Amino acid sequence: MRHDFRCEKFRASGLAGAGINSIVAMSGAPKGSVYHFFPTGKHGLVAAALDEAEKVIGGWYRQIFGQKAPVSEKVRSLFDSTAEWVQARNFMKGCPITAVTLDIDAESEDLRALCSSVFETFQTIIASGLDDVPASQRAGVAQLILASLEGALVLSRAQASPNPLAETGTLLAATLARAFEQRSEAVELPRRAKTRRGARSL
Amino acid sequence: MRHDFRCEKFRASGLAGAGINSIVAMSGAPKGSVYHFFPTGKHGLVAAALDEAEKVIGGWYRQIFGQKAPVSEKVRSLFDSTAEWVQARNFMKGCPITAVTLDIDAESEDLRALCSSVFETFQTIIASGLDDVPASQRAGVAQLILASLEGALVLSRAQASPNPLAETGTLLAATLARAFEQRSEAVELPRRAKTRRGARSL
Repeated sequence: MRHDFRCEKFRASGLAGAGINSIVAMSGAPKGSVYHFFPTGKHGLVAAALDEAEKVIGGWYRQIFGQKAPVSEKVRSLFDSTAEWVQARNFMKGCPITAVTLDIDAESEDLRALCSSVFETFQTIIASGLDDVPASQRAGVAQLILASLEGALVLSRAQASPNPLAETGTLLAATLARAFEQRSEAVELPRRAKTRRGARSL
Repeated sequence: MRHDFRCEKFRASGLAGAGINSIVAMSGAPKGSVYHFFPTGKHGLVAAALDEAEKVIGGWYRQIFGQKAPVSEKVRSLFDSTAEWVQARNFMKGCPITAVTLDIDAESEDLRALCSSVFETFQTIIASGLDDVPASQRAGVAQLILASLEGALVLSRAQASPNPLAETGTLLAATLARAFEQRSEAVELPRRAKTRRGARSL
């Protein structure tokens, strides 16, 4: 997997920091003059970075959720690989879509639809791999997985530890497995159903 | 509940934007000179804002998780009140702790422990209200709730919609209720247990 892509800058300090730093580096102009010389340049730069992030991160998620494996295993793999990724970067990088979303202000309002679209792509990729979940609930569960991942990544960065990601992934995987095994017990996951039947006779 | 507190600035654009804007507004100095004139000022400003956020948001969470109510109701209340909060602010504000965490760089590394400490306070408050969850698992479940909340808030801001928060809260509440009702079915939540027994006889 490639992680050294253009939007890497945005992973570190978001739209405000990364945009300014990128443009200053390219232009050699003093920071304060950036917005005079590049009135629309920042938007184009960010849009290109979001597009690239969609492809690279989307490819990463597609690899995990395209596997033939139980949903719980895919969820753990998603969180564990993110934990490894952020630890390898010394907890200084995060999700570029989150970083840009948090930096949207009145002047960059047009970036909101781009961020929303990339998150929707991620959610669709995750939903497509939730074989154990009833089809009508896959979008909602995918949204819960994506929200938990984004939030746990923030907690891992705050603690400078892979634990929040690893622990959240493990618990979410177990909780989802339990919930959806139960919901569809008539047709799926006989091993679990047996265990519960055994418990009932106590 | 008071939401118009000092750290409000950080909710909008994080450490980079808010810190610089605040200091520039106070000093009247050109942006580029801020770091020369206020080499430690920004850290103090952010630390005070984080402290205030801990008190105000912590009070909000304490009010929800201190209620006598099922865990699922508390979780829904947490997500729904956050959805209302961000919608009332036109999706331009978010969690100040997340905003600062994402803006941490080599020069502001000392803020990481502060952010981590505030998140830990939130997690402890949530855990203290998880009566239905076995004591040994409350910290983990609280971390999952906090991570999902922070992530869903980002998704709601990206979509400019309360739906990601409301939907994630509803699904997480139902999923947790199902998981922990089952785990402790011998002593708790007889209504649910009855429903499951009914389903079994089909």
